[in-house]
Amino acid sequence: MTPCTKPPKSSPKVGTANLSEASLTGEFALIARLRARLPAIGDDAAVVALPPGDLLLTADAVVSGVHFDLDLVGIDDVGWKALAVNVSDVAAMGGRPLHALVTVAGPLATVDLDALYDGVLAAAEVFACPVVGGDLVAAPVLIVSVAVTGTLDGSAPVLRSGAAPGDVLFVTGPLGSSAAGLELLRTGRGSEAPDLALAHRRPRARVAEGRAARTAGATAMIDLSDGLASDVRHIAEASGVGVALDRVPVAVGVARATGDDGVAAALGGGEDYELLFAAPDPGRVEDAFSAAGLTRPLAIGRCTADAGERRLADGDLPEGGWEHTW
Amino acid sequence: MTPCTKPPKSSPKVGTANLSEASLTGEFALIARLRARLPAIGDDAAVVALPPGDLLLTADAVVSGVHFDLDLVGIDDVGWKALAVNVSDVAAMGGRPLHALVTVAGPLATVDLDALYDGVLAAAEVFACPVVGGDLVAAPVLIVSVAVTGTLDGSAPVLRSGAAPGDVLFVTGPLGSSAAGLELLRTGRGSEAPDLALAHRRPRARVAEGRAARTAGATAMIDLSDGLASDVRHIAEASGVGVALDRVPVAVGVARATGDDGVAAALGGGEDYELLFAAPDPGRVEDAFSAAGLTRPLAIGRCTADAGERRLADGDLPEGGWEHTW
Repeated sequence: MTPCTKPPKSSPKVGTANLSEASLTGEFALIARLRARLPAIGDDAAVVALPPGDLLLTADAVVSGVHFDLDLVGIDDVGWKALAVNVSDVAAMGGRPLHALVTVAGPLATVDLDALYDGVLAAAEVFACPVVGGDLVAAPVLIVSVAVTGTLDGSAPVLRSGAAPGDVLFVTGPLGSSAAGLELLRTGRGSEAPDLALAHRRPRARVAEGRAARTAGATAMIDLSDGLASDVRHIAEASGVGVALDRVPVAVGVARATGDDGVAAALGGGEDYELLFAAPDPGRVEDAFSAAGLTRPLAIGRCTADAGERRLADGDLPEGGWEHTW
Repeated sequence: MTPCTKPPKSSPKVGTANLSEASLTGEFALIARLRARLPAIGDDAAVVALPPGDLLLTADAVVSGVHFDLDLVGIDDVGWKALAVNVSDVAAMGGRPLHALVTVAGPLATVDLDALYDGVLAAAEVFACPVVGGDLVAAPVLIVSVAVTGTLDGSAPVLRSGAAPGDVLFVTGPLGSSAAGLELLRTGRGSEAPDLALAHRRPRARVAEGRAARTAGATAMIDLSDGLASDVRHIAEASGVGVALDRVPVAVGVARATGDDGVAAALGGGEDYELLFAAPDPGRVEDAFSAAGLTRPLAIGRCTADAGERRLADGDLPEGGWEHTW
């Protein structure tokens, strides 16, 4: 991956401890351990080399009690997810990640930062997205705020806004696993379907799939973070097209976990982090995914010329996706 | 500045509202207003063009009750500072900022986000660092987490580690203003010295000065965020040199505000965000700053061959800088 020469610190103030803090006493032994695991860290800012072409930039944060419950998931899972959801945003443009900046705010004396970084660094390795900087700050609640860079390797990004009538809509895999896994964890049944629980705890960013979709001429793409019902509307609205879905592919085990047909979890559960994309040529899509050694994506419907259309089979596409409650 | 095509969202979940949220109702009218002020926002990730050469990456967060007190500063000041401290890290490498990602976590229904973004966007304009993405998430405490990219325009970065014995140490301005300003605000005397209060509320990142120092052959540089006593140690330790300071330049009004000679504020107050750098040729430093139309930096001492030396005038350099209390 891109070589890092010297990396970051921060602007430490009361309660701030940047990852490059030089004189370490007491609590700073912790920082020393982290630094040993983050060899790229150490100056005011990271200096990184880049491949040619445009840069992708994205940032997402997860908050304890809002986006995760440490009674249900491990703090290592939180670290994984904080990185993965950012990588997923890069994947949704057809790019691949380059670097991550990880800022942890929380009651640092009581947070298991080693475990948190276990998850961060596991994801960084799996997604080939090294952590080159960040910040550690004292706060009354645990928040992991991540920013990620990515590259398109000289290609054009796949935006949300390029879908045209007639384009076929695909998802990169069946849906509902994360919502079903959360439901199992909430009801103490996580061990009944460990794969579903894992889908919730450690979502996979579909980087290779996003690149294959771009190669296949995808005209619009988004990652399924809110849920299909909500996210397909984002593509429709940005592109000015209608959408007519034929079906909602539900992942194995979701119906059993949720006690219904699983469609609600697939439409509105969110956090699956599969990609939804539109493409004009299904044959080209199949070829591109096959050439990349990837499972064929699932055609779920098409874009239509009636910009107001939001259809599922013979009925209206339900509203759905996570409610944003403030 | 670098053109932005399409920008960011996030991975919205319960309580998450990314800045590109498409269907806006209720509280989302607020997001709509923010989006109108952030024209670069709108897709899974921002796509930005870059100048040639290495990229700088840095991230810093500020937390209510830890790094700022909203009884003493405006929430617009918080937005300004969150961006400025990141730009300062880029300046400390000899670079200039390119883009910012701004993540706001907090009790969003009660936070004046418009005012917060007033400050963010004012700083973004002054420092030529447009906001191209970020995230808005619900949290019980206000945290502004920012990541900034920067460029060296093809030059080598000025690290902390390059100082050599004999190099002269400079600061880009007199110190203590921020600590004095905070003291005035805390004691209800902010109007007595508005310039000091402003130095605390709206620190300036010394971008032009950092570039001039780089041009002048600076061998090591850091921004004075913790305070001179602490930050000069970072350069000494990273470079393996001793430091012998002749003097500590105290800003006008600091002594009056603090009720002593102001040296403690200058040495340990922190948050001045002036730059400290080492350079072998004072004449070249003077020429570079003069050519850039900048005030001449202040020579305060030199680097020595005794790596353990930490001297101020005839005595030991005090410990100091902000305590990191977790």
